[in-house]
Amino acid sequence: MDIKTRIETAVAAAIVRGQSGVAPQRLAGALDYAVNPGGARIRPVILLSVAKACGDRNPALADAAGAALELLHCASLVHDDLPCFDDADLRRGKPSVHRATSESIAVLTGDSLIIMAFETLARAAGSDPARAATLIGLLAQRSGMPDGICAGQGWESEAKIDLSAYHRAKTAALFMAATTMGAVAAGQDPEPWEELGLRIGEAFQVADDLRDALCGESELGKPAGQDDLHGRPSAVTQLGVDGAKARLKDILSGAIASIPSCPGEAALAHLVQAQARQFAPLDMSASRVPGE
Amino acid sequence: MDIKTRIETAVAAAIVRGQSGVAPQRLAGALDYAVNPGGARIRPVILLSVAKACGDRNPALADAAGAALELLHCASLVHDDLPCFDDADLRRGKPSVHRATSESIAVLTGDSLIIMAFETLARAAGSDPARAATLIGLLAQRSGMPDGICAGQGWESEAKIDLSAYHRAKTAALFMAATTMGAVAAGQDPEPWEELGLRIGEAFQVADDLRDALCGESELGKPAGQDDLHGRPSAVTQLGVDGAKARLKDILSGAIASIPSCPGEAALAHLVQAQARQFAPLDMSASRVPGE
Repeated sequence: MDIKTRIETAVAAAIVRGQSGVAPQRLAGALDYAVNPGGARIRPVILLSVAKACGDRNPALADAAGAALELLHCASLVHDDLPCFDDADLRRGKPSVHRATSESIAVLTGDSLIIMAFETLARAAGSDPARAATLIGLLAQRSGMPDGICAGQGWESEAKIDLSAYHRAKTAALFMAATTMGAVAAGQDPEPWEELGLRIGEAFQVADDLRDALCGESELGKPAGQDDLHGRPSAVTQLGVDGAKARLKDILSGAIASIPSCPGEAALAHLVQAQARQFAPLDMSASRVPGE
Repeated sequence: MDIKTRIETAVAAAIVRGQSGVAPQRLAGALDYAVNPGGARIRPVILLSVAKACGDRNPALADAAGAALELLHCASLVHDDLPCFDDADLRRGKPSVHRATSESIAVLTGDSLIIMAFETLARAAGSDPARAATLIGLLAQRSGMPDGICAGQGWESEAKIDLSAYHRAKTAALFMAATTMGAVAAGQDPEPWEELGLRIGEAFQVADDLRDALCGESELGKPAGQDDLHGRPSAVTQLGVDGAKARLKDILSGAIASIPSCPGEAALAHLVQAQARQFAPLDMSASRVPGE
């Protein structure tokens, strides 16, 4: 089974479990609506690619980890779109969850998906509970306080922002979860894989800043120009468009250089370049990443 | 160390970890505000009491389970108080989290506490990761969809409510988590302990309905008469005050009868009666529970 199919299968299985039995139907429907049709599933693709590069010794646990990470990410999108945050009407080209249902259902959808993420890992503990517990710990660390995406959002309520901590928590955290969880699911230590996740996160942040500045709403599937509108720090406002593009290329070559020695090292480098092409703005897509 | 001290120590340790390092300070402060000063901590008291009744073989894991359950409960209170749900200005006699901070900080506080609950259990996995994974699975089941407190809240958005599923998910779920997690933390199977949790939850629901109908805001530390105001199903509107009181006594005797055979059975029965006295309305407090 290819990686995308593994992810969709694992995510779908989790959602079906969450909707089973005597469940409130609006919330049950919103769980599915929030995760399907998915975006590029970049985070679990990276997670499973790292697991494969490390030998993929426990594919069932890796699949659960990929699904858990995607569920957590989708939960964060649902909550980020709420009126008290971005007040976004659109997500992935369709009405955001609170627009399609209600604010209360959207809060519950996010809460349920967060819980489902941890439940998915707990259910996959079977033959290797110690590794499952490590995965749960890593996912929690990169999601919550003080280092995870909750902290990242929390920084936006501070009068004085620690920019490095902000970007690390807001965007890099779930990519660090992806690389470290992929390694752990395959029986490796997480630490050597942190830098790759951090650098992919930095690249993603700069690419996202470029897309927000250069693309229209129809291309993004969500409102454009949000950084400018909300006065958020952005690589484009700091470095200009050309400066941000140069920074993106530097980060990507650093990311590839940071990949720990492993059986699938070359394939993983290729994957990072391919993913970069997918999420970079259109006029970056033909650029050659250094080392390619 | 007595049970209350064990709970406060474990909850405080989790909060301090969540506030450590370079963290956004408003959110960090809100985590503490949301859990302190605590209420009666009924759920973790029950959890640790069951663990003790079963021999308390792994006190560190039981403490983590108690803290996790309380963090999850506090998270649910923060989200339930939001304007899109109860729009409550007060909780435990002080401004609710979104009133004291902001709606966005309140959403993030709830999210962070949910994640912290699972992280607390993952960190305590150490010597017994299989049991920790079971505890994480139980907490998730009783918190999320389709059986947990998220489902319970979700039922309030349905045109047609399944009352049995609603009460079971909304109130009984975390008491079922308490009894089953206490048993598992002490090395016992969870299933025989489900009924005790379900019955304590039913009793708590009826007592809460009575308090909502009979007590004033100053006694409750939160707005009174909410069931009537929001048109929510209540034992008082269904059975009248005397009928609800009689029902509460029946449920409590059933709860005590359901306690599985274990070394601390008598002490646990005593605890259930003592807890009932604490959460029942004032004019119930002198009533003798059947069997006492």
